[in-house]
Amino acid sequence: MYRTHTCGELRISDVGKKVSLSGWVQRTRDKGFMLWVDLRDRYGITQLILNEEETPAELLEKARTLGREWVIQVEGEVIERASKNDKIPTGEIEIKVTALNVLNASKVPPFTIEEDTDGGDDLRMKYRYLDLRREGVRENMIFRSNLAIETRKYLAGSGFIEVETPNLIKSTPEGARDFVVPSRLNPGQFYALPQSPQTFKQILMVAGFDKYFQIVKCFRDEDLRADRQPEFTQIDCEMSFVTQEDILNTFEGLTRHLFKTTLDVELPSFPRMNYDDALRLYGSDKPDLRFGMEFVELNDIIKEQAVGFSVFESAELVAGICAKGIASAYSRKDIDKLTDWVKRPQIGAKGLVYVKFEEDGSIKTSVGKFYNDDLLKAWGELFGAEKGDMLFILSGELDKTRKQLGELRLELGRNLDLIKPGDYKPLWVVDFPLLEWDEDENRFFAMHHPFTSPKKADIEKMMSDDHEILKGLRADAYDLVINGAEIGGGSIRIHDRALQSKNFKLLGFTPEEAEEQFGFLLGAFEYGAPPHGGIAFGFDRLCAVLKGQTSIRDFIAFPKNNMGRDMMIDAPANVDKKQLDELYLDLKEIKSGE
Amino acid sequence: MYRTHTCGELRISDVGKKVSLSGWVQRTRDKGFMLWVDLRDRYGITQLILNEEETPAELLEKARTLGREWVIQVEGEVIERASKNDKIPTGEIEIKVTALNVLNASKVPPFTIEEDTDGGDDLRMKYRYLDLRREGVRENMIFRSNLAIETRKYLAGSGFIEVETPNLIKSTPEGARDFVVPSRLNPGQFYALPQSPQTFKQILMVAGFDKYFQIVKCFRDEDLRADRQPEFTQIDCEMSFVTQEDILNTFEGLTRHLFKTTLDVELPSFPRMNYDDALRLYGSDKPDLRFGMEFVELNDIIKEQAVGFSVFESAELVAGICAKGIASAYSRKDIDKLTDWVKRPQIGAKGLVYVKFEEDGSIKTSVGKFYNDDLLKAWGELFGAEKGDMLFILSGELDKTRKQLGELRLELGRNLDLIKPGDYKPLWVVDFPLLEWDEDENRFFAMHHPFTSPKKADIEKMMSDDHEILKGLRADAYDLVINGAEIGGGSIRIHDRALQSKNFKLLGFTPEEAEEQFGFLLGAFEYGAPPHGGIAFGFDRLCAVLKGQTSIRDFIAFPKNNMGRDMMIDAPANVDKKQLDELYLDLKEIKSGE
Repeated sequence: MYRTHTCGELRISDVGKKVSLSGWVQRTRDKGFMLWVDLRDRYGITQLILNEEETPAELLEKARTLGREWVIQVEGEVIERASKNDKIPTGEIEIKVTALNVLNASKVPPFTIEEDTDGGDDLRMKYRYLDLRREGVRENMIFRSNLAIETRKYLAGSGFIEVETPNLIKSTPEGARDFVVPSRLNPGQFYALPQSPQTFKQILMVAGFDKYFQIVKCFRDEDLRADRQPEFTQIDCEMSFVTQEDILNTFEGLTRHLFKTTLDVELPSFPRMNYDDALRLYGSDKPDLRFGMEFVELNDIIKEQAVGFSVFESAELVAGICAKGIASAYSRKDIDKLTDWVKRPQIGAKGLVYVKFEEDGSIKTSVGKFYNDDLLKAWGELFGAEKGDMLFILSGELDKTRKQLGELRLELGRNLDLIKPGDYKPLWVVDFPLLEWDEDENRFFAMHHPFTSPKKADIEKMMSDDHEILKGLRADAYDLVINGAEIGGGSIRIHDRALQSKNFKLLGFTPEEAEEQFGFLLGAFEYGAPPHGGIAFGFDRLCAVLKGQTSIRDFIAFPKNNMGRDMMIDAPANVDKKQLDELYLDLKEIKSGE
Repeated sequence: MYRTHTCGELRISDVGKKVSLSGWVQRTRDKGFMLWVDLRDRYGITQLILNEEETPAELLEKARTLGREWVIQVEGEVIERASKNDKIPTGEIEIKVTALNVLNASKVPPFTIEEDTDGGDDLRMKYRYLDLRREGVRENMIFRSNLAIETRKYLAGSGFIEVETPNLIKSTPEGARDFVVPSRLNPGQFYALPQSPQTFKQILMVAGFDKYFQIVKCFRDEDLRADRQPEFTQIDCEMSFVTQEDILNTFEGLTRHLFKTTLDVELPSFPRMNYDDALRLYGSDKPDLRFGMEFVELNDIIKEQAVGFSVFESAELVAGICAKGIASAYSRKDIDKLTDWVKRPQIGAKGLVYVKFEEDGSIKTSVGKFYNDDLLKAWGELFGAEKGDMLFILSGELDKTRKQLGELRLELGRNLDLIKPGDYKPLWVVDFPLLEWDEDENRFFAMHHPFTSPKKADIEKMMSDDHEILKGLRADAYDLVINGAEIGGGSIRIHDRALQSKNFKLLGFTPEEAEEQFGFLLGAFEYGAPPHGGIAFGFDRLCAVLKGQTSIRDFIAFPKNNMGRDMMIDAPANVDKKQLDELYLDLKEIKSGE
């Protein structure tokens, strides 16, 4: 037996007990006559004590050889500490060591196992087993484990069945790029790893499973941006005989349960906002509602005032936001900095117009040449601006300007400390467009995915050939947004073969392509498919949002870097030619630089 | 809203309620003046009733068009049935239909959606969504879901953290064949899909996670035999600072919990048997203990009696089993049939010797020419045979004969109805050999896997060059066997770099190969690796054994056939040349017939 207790367990009430502990040496302090060792395991840290008077010389000598991260087992007696540490639960006791057994030595770690580590990203990824010893990373993993447990508790308690769908499926050119897996038993053919269990969960609905869920790995072979992983985890769900409202209510319930049980946070209400309003008011389909600053559109008043300021008067959109109470504090330098910020290529605005309503009633603005105080006051009224407030206005093409103003709003929210820590603002964004026009490829793509149902009222319009009408189609599709992060999304699905075929056609599939790729689903719709819909939550993202962190990588035990490499195991790697031969594959010559 | 209740919910106490239900038409019975519809969903069946007197003619007409498996929604009133059906929970009521809405029609299914379906295997796999509607298959999936929930409840409740390990890892030539995944971002390189999370869970122990588990998909590209799947699911666990006993006790606890909570079965004790005894007494490392019939070895007595029967006297092993009380009933024909059975190439015995101890005291045997009654009585005493009992004896090479006799024992167990339904006999088989000599490849393989620790007492012997000594090495490795099926296995792992390197060397790795494939693990052992060990249960098999079924395929929602094909989605499939180009791959010409 390696231990009677863990390193996080002993208390003042245990004083006098003979115990044995095992763990890692966090640090040692040697005062000559006395030696302390902090012994660490997953559960905590317990202080060990040895002293010249009572500890046998040999034992003390052995203890002096211990280095950081050595694994040891000790026996001893729990005693009350002379100087207590109220920062740790075991801080009132220490262990007077009577025996010490080195279970494994350790080289000096390449970085410190502390919250504020001196290790860089690459080093920490290569030695991930050391990085995972750091309390914050370990706590993140434990949090993730708990979040999964609570997810399952809630969904199973609501009658959902967890069904495992296959990982070796079929590649489809629609959507993101698949990872493929050559089949040795079927020469020349390939499986694909699932980007989501979408079609399988719909099949389960056709099979009458009624309520399905799965916490499931998904795969996408995309060029990796920061904070995107080739394999990621979803909470995947599907329900039969439901409307959109049923699904929103069920998953509002799940989200409330998760916040309550893991963070003890009672979420506020989950308002619903349609997609058009989200773009119009926040310039984003995932608005951060932790602060206000809704957009105000000025096109009408600009047209009315007609002062001849062509930048505004010829713009497709003139819109702004109002920052409360900053007019006097916001300096010329601040304005210049912000103007530079919106002009960066990542944002791409041409310039930034401001209007300050000073406390003394005066108005300062960058467009004073064109607009007098009376005209500007009329703007202010539209914003509900009061003395001390400041407007920021952008203009240009509709979509671009909204996006830029949305970014500006978030930047101001951050800069002006409008976001309270621990504040959570959930939101359902609904009524997404069914189709999205791609200028480059000159075709429609599915905004959500090809199985999403149009709104009932829009089904007729799907028969139109008019692109403008088709762009206006709305779907029973919805996203859950919390604090400006998309937690998940879903839709009511098509369950009718003819309508699904029509949708495939709009997406540019020939009937043959549709049949080859999704024939099984179209076929299934002919054998009694119930109305159904579902949702998927990004589990990695959900973890990060709940913990108020921004990187999903900190919630994945073994993440890959931006080149899709696992730095610890050094994968991907070359494989034997024999293995490729068995798969009927040849490697093409790879030119250097590729 | 599609329904107020499910089809399994309404009872006599609901009579008078206005309800709406949705589901599938299981069947209709039309008596002309009256029409009944059995409406089915996941939760049960509810009878609908329409009659000429009360139901509007139009509604009745519509109901008459309904076919099997149509999806409908109805409204109506719960009424008491005239003739009750006590076989279903809703059998006391029916719904007097006032409105009927066809949600989706259905073609006539290609096989009946009944327990005794007329559909063959291939048809049911192609239309898996219809097969999954059958009650037995659906109940299996629900059972699986519940088993996973209870597994997580128990392990999380015991302090285990569920950590997701990656699916895109590195290929290693050791063990079974990997599925590989070409990496687009790393041209010419490949990921592999994990055969198990073995090295990652050990890394988690080095990281101090202490207790890890995961219910996880694993992958093996093997030639598929009946009831083997290219992707399968494991309950995977690892613990630190534990001995073999700690692990056995923890997972005995898990197994007891699962049987208790899902089947309400209290398992008997979990005896431990060492590997050598299992082979000696049952000819198998997974003995079925639901009946006795232990082997008795006759070599000593045969040598002593020395009658000149060379088949026995020159055999490496002469051993038999005793079947109680069958002597008089077991006919000449039975014996011939059994003799043919053991001579089949799958078993491969040369012949079968029997001895009958008749009720009247006489003895009948196939070796009476060599052995008189007194000699045979001496055999009988070794078996503890009484009047009415019958011995079956095989002889030949040690390993082969044990295997044959083991098969014979199981065959007799089945034929003689010695296995009681609902009987469960768990067993830990322990002390497996560390290494297994492969005659064909002229090298050692790891019996469990290369990370398994030898028993402490055997570590010294690993330094030997003598193959006989190396074959005798015993490991801290164990299997859980229930009713003759291997539920899972595991081992205490090596946590010392030098010992791991030594083991790799015995397995034929050069130091360079060991470093290339497992350098990260060897490296991790140098930074404070704790003693650790673990186990993995085959989840699909566990489901089947608990439910007393033999095929794991019936517990997998979307299984693949023996060629690794998913018949429903028709995968694997061809992929675009463009996709292969991106992966720097060429397909070799595939000769016909391959």
